[in-house]
Amino acid sequence: MSTDSLAIAVLAAGKGTRMRSHLPKVLHRLSGQTLLENVLASLGQVSPSRRLVIVGYAAEQVQKTLADVPDLEFIKQTEQLGTGHAVQQLIPALDGFSGNLLVLNGDVPLLRPETLAQMLATHNENGNAATILTAQVLDPSGYGRVFCNENLVVEEIVEHRDCSDPQRQNRRVNAGIYCFNWSALMTVLPQLKADNDQQEYYLTDVIKSLSPVMAVDAADPNEILGINNRKQLAEADDILQDRIKKDWMLAGVTLVNPDSITIDATVKLEPDVIIEPQTHLRGHTVIQTGCRIGPGCLVEDSTIGPNTTLLYSVVSESTLAGGDRVGPYAHLRGQVSVGKNCRIGNFVEIKKSTLGDRTNVAHLSYIGDATLGEKVNVGAGTITANYDGFQKHPTVIGDRTKTGSNSVLVAPIEVGSDVTIGAGSVLTKNVQDDCLVVSRAPQRVIPEWRPREVRGDG
Amino acid sequence: MSTDSLAIAVLAAGKGTRMRSHLPKVLHRLSGQTLLENVLASLGQVSPSRRLVIVGYAAEQVQKTLADVPDLEFIKQTEQLGTGHAVQQLIPALDGFSGNLLVLNGDVPLLRPETLAQMLATHNENGNAATILTAQVLDPSGYGRVFCNENLVVEEIVEHRDCSDPQRQNRRVNAGIYCFNWSALMTVLPQLKADNDQQEYYLTDVIKSLSPVMAVDAADPNEILGINNRKQLAEADDILQDRIKKDWMLAGVTLVNPDSITIDATVKLEPDVIIEPQTHLRGHTVIQTGCRIGPGCLVEDSTIGPNTTLLYSVVSESTLAGGDRVGPYAHLRGQVSVGKNCRIGNFVEIKKSTLGDRTNVAHLSYIGDATLGEKVNVGAGTITANYDGFQKHPTVIGDRTKTGSNSVLVAPIEVGSDVTIGAGSVLTKNVQDDCLVVSRAPQRVIPEWRPREVRGDG
Amino acid sequence: MSTDSLAIAVLAAGKGTRMRSHLPKVLHRLSGQTLLENVLASLGQVSPSRRLVIVGYAAEQVQKTLADVPDLEFIKQTEQLGTGHAVQQLIPALDGFSGNLLVLNGDVPLLRPETLAQMLATHNENGNAATILTAQVLDPSGYGRVFCNENLVVEEIVEHRDCSDPQRQNRRVNAGIYCFNWSALMTVLPQLKADNDQQEYYLTDVIKSLSPVMAVDAADPNEILGINNRKQLAEADDILQDRIKKDWMLAGVTLVNPDSITIDATVKLEPDVIIEPQTHLRGHTVIQTGCRIGPGCLVEDSTIGPNTTLLYSVVSESTLAGGDRVGPYAHLRGQVSVGKNCRIGNFVEIKKSTLGDRTNVAHLSYIGDATLGEKVNVGAGTITANYDGFQKHPTVIGDRTKTGSNSVLVAPIEVGSDVTIGAGSVLTKNVQDDCLVVSRAPQRVIPEWRPREVRGDG
Repeated sequence: MSTDSLAIAVLAAGKGTRMRSHLPKVLHRLSGQTLLENVLASLGQVSPSRRLVIVGYAAEQVQKTLADVPDLEFIKQTEQLGTGHAVQQLIPALDGFSGNLLVLNGDVPLLRPETLAQMLATHNENGNAATILTAQVLDPSGYGRVFCNENLVVEEIVEHRDCSDPQRQNRRVNAGIYCFNWSALMTVLPQLKADNDQQEYYLTDVIKSLSPVMAVDAADPNEILGINNRKQLAEADDILQDRIKKDWMLAGVTLVNPDSITIDATVKLEPDVIIEPQTHLRGHTVIQTGCRIGPGCLVEDSTIGPNTTLLYSVVSESTLAGGDRVGPYAHLRGQVSVGKNCRIGNFVEIKKSTLGDRTNVAHLSYIGDATLGEKVNVGAGTITANYDGFQKHPTVIGDRTKTGSNSVLVAPIEVGSDVTIGAGSVLTKNVQDDCLVVSRAPQRVIPEWRPREVRGDG
Repeated sequence: MSTDSLAIAVLAAGKGTRMRSHLPKVLHRLSGQTLLENVLASLGQVSPSRRLVIVGYAAEQVQKTLADVPDLEFIKQTEQLGTGHAVQQLIPALDGFSGNLLVLNGDVPLLRPETLAQMLATHNENGNAATILTAQVLDPSGYGRVFCNENLVVEEIVEHRDCSDPQRQNRRVNAGIYCFNWSALMTVLPQLKADNDQQEYYLTDVIKSLSPVMAVDAADPNEILGINNRKQLAEADDILQDRIKKDWMLAGVTLVNPDSITIDATVKLEPDVIIEPQTHLRGHTVIQTGCRIGPGCLVEDSTIGPNTTLLYSVVSESTLAGGDRVGPYAHLRGQVSVGKNCRIGNFVEIKKSTLGDRTNVAHLSYIGDATLGEKVNVGAGTITANYDGFQKHPTVIGDRTKTGSNSVLVAPIEVGSDVTIGAGSVLTKNVQDDCLVVSRAPQRVIPEWRPREVRGDG
Repeated sequence: MSTDSLAIAVLAAGKGTRMRSHLPKVLHRLSGQTLLENVLASLGQVSPSRRLVIVGYAAEQVQKTLADVPDLEFIKQTEQLGTGHAVQQLIPALDGFSGNLLVLNGDVPLLRPETLAQMLATHNENGNAATILTAQVLDPSGYGRVFCNENLVVEEIVEHRDCSDPQRQNRRVNAGIYCFNWSALMTVLPQLKADNDQQEYYLTDVIKSLSPVMAVDAADPNEILGINNRKQLAEADDILQDRIKKDWMLAGVTLVNPDSITIDATVKLEPDVIIEPQTHLRGHTVIQTGCRIGPGCLVEDSTIGPNTTLLYSVVSESTLAGGDRVGPYAHLRGQVSVGKNCRIGNFVEIKKSTLGDRTNVAHLSYIGDATLGEKVNVGAGTITANYDGFQKHPTVIGDRTKTGSNSVLVAPIEVGSDVTIGAGSVLTKNVQDDCLVVSRAPQRVIPEWRPREVRGDG
């Protein structure tokens, strides 16, 4: 048996009735990923040659949701007849396999990679037939108890309901995570019976026929928590978030009021970033050094260059070059590229546009499908009218051009460099460089004018 | 004695000096309701025929604030001479009453309906003269201790200051919540004396003259927490919120970062709703299945139809039909009705208006006192000028009409269906169906124009 | 020795490697102030005649950041050779000094003023040569243990690594905060040796040569927590925030969901203020009685007059007179002065402007460098075009004037009182009182108009 011949199987066939959801349990999310992806993330220090997922309830939905996760093999369990039955479904797929099989639960998302690595090391070093992940928990009620000798060789597993009172004092519990020598397992798995009250095939029943079997305790009992309802989902998410946030703080990121912040596992932060309260960093977001993000920001799948400040803003699928000041109440979305030292102010939406360095869009503007040069000053209330009711059209604005307040650029349109656009203008035609352009009716005054009603307090 | 003849009385006469407030204590709020309403909510499993509130400090203010709560009788206690004195004020109102009187404290808001139901059941099943609500608390300092025999028959109540050292070890404390057989109570209540240091009439003093008296322990000691200052108010609110949020999670609602979310007791949520961080659901709000609300939303007295997403928005007194996408930074208020599959984008305020299905108001608009048809596209920066400085006027826009960017519709005005309004137009007159309408000065260009100062860095 | 002759020295020379920062450790912030300023704040009940700060790593940066803190003397420790070496650097500066020296750590920010006052009182009353601040902690691992007789006279200090097993049970630990009689200290300080593994000069080594030495326990073990990494920084900030928030709640301020709120130590609040969730009060902010602030507000260096409501808004360096309603999504910044009973609505930015009483800016406006009279009604979408690309110009609007929707006032401009400005107007010239002013092209209609493509679903 080679130590690098490892298959893993994730039990992901259950509905999860207590989730009270149309979504199968393993597709519920914590910290930005499905339960199932969180389980797969615990494999970071082992290198399985095969990754099998046993699906059943809403199997197509599970497969579709995980379609982008590489190297998964889905095995269908058409009836849910217990954990033993689930693993029996692997027999055809693992025909001829001679390594170890690590069996994980799709609803146990808090395992650390270090723990599985240690479990596998113990398994291999001792030539075990099976190795069981255990944990010493404060309240073992409901768990199966694992009884070991002083060398952690398993002597017995007793379900909670079958425990004597002294046995119930044992706080070492079975996490339901197993590593099997597949050949050893195959000597007993096919014969597994469902001769119990529930008429289910229990994987624990194979253990008594295997030898040697050892236990490995998870360092942190939280690692073996399973998710059965949304309260437990929230609790597990809190634990996962605490881990992620602790790691970033120790790496040099300041979190202010960290309990109010969420950071997906996929986010990258550099030292000397300050994250202010109520900020949420999601997806493949990167925040570079010297940035101050928040309060109240949502940043998704974006790269924020160094020394940028974001205040009460939503930024998605965008790239900021650095030194930019954004917000409060700005919204950048969908392939926005902002140059260096730009100012994106309040009540500004930018969509699918490129801004050159030192360009400012300071107030009350919508910039969509536009390319702005360097040092452009977009006046308050400027709008790129990119949509004619049927399709989107581009706007191009040259370097150092200044648009007037409440001006409209009706796309498709090109405005040159060094242009000044008068306030309130509606531009429908291209403008050359170095022009003043304006469309405005003259200012007319009606003196001694009285509103049609007696002047009130307004 | 009939078990359905129940009167309840709430002691609500105190000022609550340690609240340091102009507001009487029982009017302070937690989870969206006054302390007094929270106390009344604990009556959900008993059916009192009469509900009496003993008011004193700021009595008129209390009565006025609770004017909409049905079936309350207010009894005035002009001087605050203790709990016994307060209950004595009920004697005229309960003249001839022959049932039970349940005495509650207006500053004990965390009682569960189940607890009062059990207390009443014990009271009736045993034919008690009085039944005392007790709790086993971790730190009984300051509380009166209740001593019972093994059948929970009360033998003695000893105030903390009068307890011997062994007596102080007793962790069963008096919650100050009593159920009395009113006839039995009337044999001793009128004779109650104030012969103590504080010269106050204590309701506990009647207990020693009544028999049998039993204790009922609240399942959760938090239930008997009283509010004396705003720290305790915040702590009780946290406990109440944890209960509400746990119940919704178990019912199939996902809460992300639940500690940052608040949900009033009056809110209704359907399964497979996702509530994102920093979201606050208030009043008579209903969120239907498949919605994602937040981060950063405040929704008050509104109904949000299925599969709607709200992001960083404030919605009050509004109805969304479903499938709508709202925000970030949108504000719907005051009788807004939004059809199905609408898009309400950033920096959009909608007030007292109706939108047909598939209508979009995507950016920087104010829509007030307006009726929009189906599939209308409101251009960025469009404003309904509904206010002439004296009163509000209506705007009507027909199906499939498109308003231009930065256009103004000066109300009262009616624009037909299939109309296209040019960018920057100000409309003051009605527009027929199928028109293009525009008010715009021509675009004038002054070439080779130089701003009046040497070109700087802007 | 006079009791009022006190010098304090703060050890602030370290880099703080585990902060993983370009910033020296003592300049990291919690609750709005640097670590060093937090330490200085603990001196509130003692009156040092001299305040010395021992700087080393990034000394210039530390001095520059604290330049505005009065009466600090900076002493340079060019090499960081231990706490004893640091205090040795004071010898020239304290030449001839005959009082007490209180030695504080720049990374221990949670000391209470009461604790230092008590430590000093004990020191003076007993004529101690030295007094050591100690605390009884739950987990003393890593700390030096302090062994005392029953009168708290120190008998021995043993470092954790040198403790016998029974000694490790001692939970009284050395906080590293000392009060010395300077003359007594000077008998041993110059001779201090670095004869240990680390080759550092340890201040604790002087203790064994001094007598009498006493210990004073901090009431709360949290007070002696030191900050070594950003996780500990966040934890200390949480503790400090809990103190600040508890104090305000007991003083009559309601905090809703207090864990999500942050309040700088420099903020002042009046009774009957309600702070809603996710609100952050910073700097020299004052909130007067009857205000409701939040959810989601950031208020910095501003004074908010009584009975004002702020909802989802950012307010900095501004003054509101009272009775104002602001937000949601408003932004006031930089010397804004708002009169009484004003309404600042959604998507409104006001910068460096003055508003008279009862003036409204209700929607989608930018008001910059402007002076507005009383009862002005600023129409939705109104913009003061204050910037010509080179400099800022002022706008003045008289009492009771009403600006039209989407109007632009091109500064410099003065508009009189009782003026009505038509919707969509661009004003470039001053306007007298009592006028109607408008710049608008006529409304033109092209009937039977068909968009250039077949009508789709938009």
